[in-house]
Amino acid sequence: MTDVKTLALRAKAAGRVLAVSGVRQRNDALSNIADALIASCGDILAANAVDMARAAVNNMRDSLRDRLLLTEARICSIAEGVAQIEAADDPLGAGTVTTRPNGLQISKVAVPLGLVGFIYEARPNVTADAAALCVKSGNAVLLRGSRDALNSNIAIANVIRGAIAKAGLPEDCVCLLEVEGRETVTEMMNLTGILDVLIPRGGAGFIQTVVTNSRVPVIETGAGICHVYADCAADIDMAVEIIYNAKCSRPSVCNAIEQLVVNEAIAEALLLKIAEKFNASPYTVEIRADAAALKILGDRAVQASDEDYHTEFGDYIIAVKTVPDLQAAIEHINATGTGHSEAIVTADYGAAQTFLREVDAAAVYVNASTRFTDGGEFGLGAEIGISTQKLHARGPMGLSALTSSKFTIYGNGQIR
Amino acid sequence: MTDVKTLALRAKAAGRVLAVSGVRQRNDALSNIADALIASCGDILAANAVDMARAAVNNMRDSLRDRLLLTEARICSIAEGVAQIEAADDPLGAGTVTTRPNGLQISKVAVPLGLVGFIYEARPNVTADAAALCVKSGNAVLLRGSRDALNSNIAIANVIRGAIAKAGLPEDCVCLLEVEGRETVTEMMNLTGILDVLIPRGGAGFIQTVVTNSRVPVIETGAGICHVYADCAADIDMAVEIIYNAKCSRPSVCNAIEQLVVNEAIAEALLLKIAEKFNASPYTVEIRADAAALKILGDRAVQASDEDYHTEFGDYIIAVKTVPDLQAAIEHINATGTGHSEAIVTADYGAAQTFLREVDAAAVYVNASTRFTDGGEFGLGAEIGISTQKLHARGPMGLSALTSSKFTIYGNGQIR
Repeated sequence: MTDVKTLALRAKAAGRVLAVSGVRQRNDALSNIADALIASCGDILAANAVDMARAAVNNMRDSLRDRLLLTEARICSIAEGVAQIEAADDPLGAGTVTTRPNGLQISKVAVPLGLVGFIYEARPNVTADAAALCVKSGNAVLLRGSRDALNSNIAIANVIRGAIAKAGLPEDCVCLLEVEGRETVTEMMNLTGILDVLIPRGGAGFIQTVVTNSRVPVIETGAGICHVYADCAADIDMAVEIIYNAKCSRPSVCNAIEQLVVNEAIAEALLLKIAEKFNASPYTVEIRADAAALKILGDRAVQASDEDYHTEFGDYIIAVKTVPDLQAAIEHINATGTGHSEAIVTADYGAAQTFLREVDAAAVYVNASTRFTDGGEFGLGAEIGISTQKLHARGPMGLSALTSSKFTIYGNGQIR
Repeated sequence: MTDVKTLALRAKAAGRVLAVSGVRQRNDALSNIADALIASCGDILAANAVDMARAAVNNMRDSLRDRLLLTEARICSIAEGVAQIEAADDPLGAGTVTTRPNGLQISKVAVPLGLVGFIYEARPNVTADAAALCVKSGNAVLLRGSRDALNSNIAIANVIRGAIAKAGLPEDCVCLLEVEGRETVTEMMNLTGILDVLIPRGGAGFIQTVVTNSRVPVIETGAGICHVYADCAADIDMAVEIIYNAKCSRPSVCNAIEQLVVNEAIAEALLLKIAEKFNASPYTVEIRADAAALKILGDRAVQASDEDYHTEFGDYIIAVKTVPDLQAAIEHINATGTGHSEAIVTADYGAAQTFLREVDAAAVYVNASTRFTDGGEFGLGAEIGISTQKLHARGPMGLSALTSSKFTIYGNGQIR
């Protein structure tokens, strides 16, 4: 078993070769990866079956088991995603150039970050997505997946490494940690000078642990306590559709909402309608309401605790907060949100503008569901995560979030 | 005395007002600041005299005393700098907009970071520069200067706060910590959720302490172990001028070089000439050489230790490393540099291209002095520091480095 640092150093060295390769060679590697995933479908499915059997023994939740499962169709879709990344524009090499009065010609060009450390949940498709995004952007990547997906990840990584080598690039551009323990995360957080960035995905608690303890630069991703605010000037039917979609279409993902903030002027009409919509749905949606909302909803809701307004449920649970006006809504959202995605439903131009301006989040919506916060839906292509921090990248992170810049200066003897 | 957290919260609240102000009002504030600095020149000089007297008692080094000293001319120059920042383009509000097939209109616009924490050395002019850059970019700032400049900083901050209030903006947009202890740095590093970014300036050891221990996002600045590589195809006279300028024009700054890397094919001719140049200069330059260079330089140099190749001297000391070829030079530079500024002197096109591509630093030069790495010299305007990290900003950081982005999405009922 190779230790974490040794593996990282191998990836770092491979990354130096990848960083100076042309986009044609990087695209060849991606094309080979897409082909090889299809060609090796059988091997990958066999490895996945081992993980699925273990998941059954461990009584893994259905929704998690579904994320872990691979099928022939899913592998085709992963290969298609890789082909799309191949088709994307090269994120490297472009920039600006200026010539200074002393004749110095200064270019600022996009360059790879170097070696990306990536920690992620038990979704084997992410192994291929992350590897493809990193190869395209000229970065080596050290992957640390979940132990639950270990066999699937090893199979996929081996296919990818072979395909990279076939394009004449070092296979160590993509390295997967094959060890299972939590201590590998700690080791990654201490690879100062080797890892150029660490991107953790997973639960909010895990991400905070990494943000707090990492000695290498981190991009914080994904924790999403998102809200829909139904303004006094909201179209009630539109609000009901948006709230229902944002809560129920996929409650486990980070752009789903956890809270409904409702203006007291429309609280009665809206809450009764949304409760009815929840009741008529195939899901059992639990409503946790404050005193004013509880008065309207009666038995249909339970009393919310303060804790509920700071929790990412990731489930069919919604907390309801009644507010007297727009400013109170904005204050509540800025105080309890994670800066991910926030929406207002309103027909009032001024309210929309104020909300867009004053809510401090990566994505702020008027009259649309928060569920659109996604690289694909935003037209950015594939994403490696959604940044909830303000430095470097904010919101869905595509290829350009995996680049830095470099000033190159052409002189002919200038001194200062 | 207000404690750090209370002051930070006041600045944070003021920042929310500043963030949504128009550029006209922010420019008014800057114009007022420039005027008020001139009008209050006497008060500022009186406060500076107290700091200078204390510096004399403490036997502060001459070069540091010169950085601390204010004069009428220097205050005019500070005011001029503020006026230049006023004249710069608004870094906020511009961006891109796309409309998706479902009709969602998605804008990505530049927004302020929020509250900037800034820790800096005993240079009172930096107080005004940093405040002006933050006001222009819509950020509140919590300033923590050096105890050696405390009286000067208090006087300047008071002038600035009054000028901001006169423009109708909250004076707490600029808050200065008036406490002197090291523990204020620790408190700033723990203001998670309040400080949006922490920018430390100062010695390499101090910056590393902040990078390692801060729980709020940090932008690493300034540590500079820079090199000039004199290639076998170098014009020897040009190399001598560039090396001399990069070492001697201001050895205390981060873009000065610490090391000369020389190709063995020209080592004898170059080293004898540069030693002669040093000898003829008004400075006493100490040369610390490896075995090959020592053989050439004899008594003119001393034996370099391994430590010397990892030290930012900040003084009239230069370490010399002899290498057999370009690749060895690049490897030495990537292994011992801090990713700040690196230069090659060569007449060989291929060597120049390889060096530009493979040296991993914020600024890479061909045939020019590293001393040009500076916001002003690069035409970016004033700078708050020089980033040596790859995330968010790399190289001189001007107004745009003090911004983040926000996606604002206009819908009409879209759900996913």
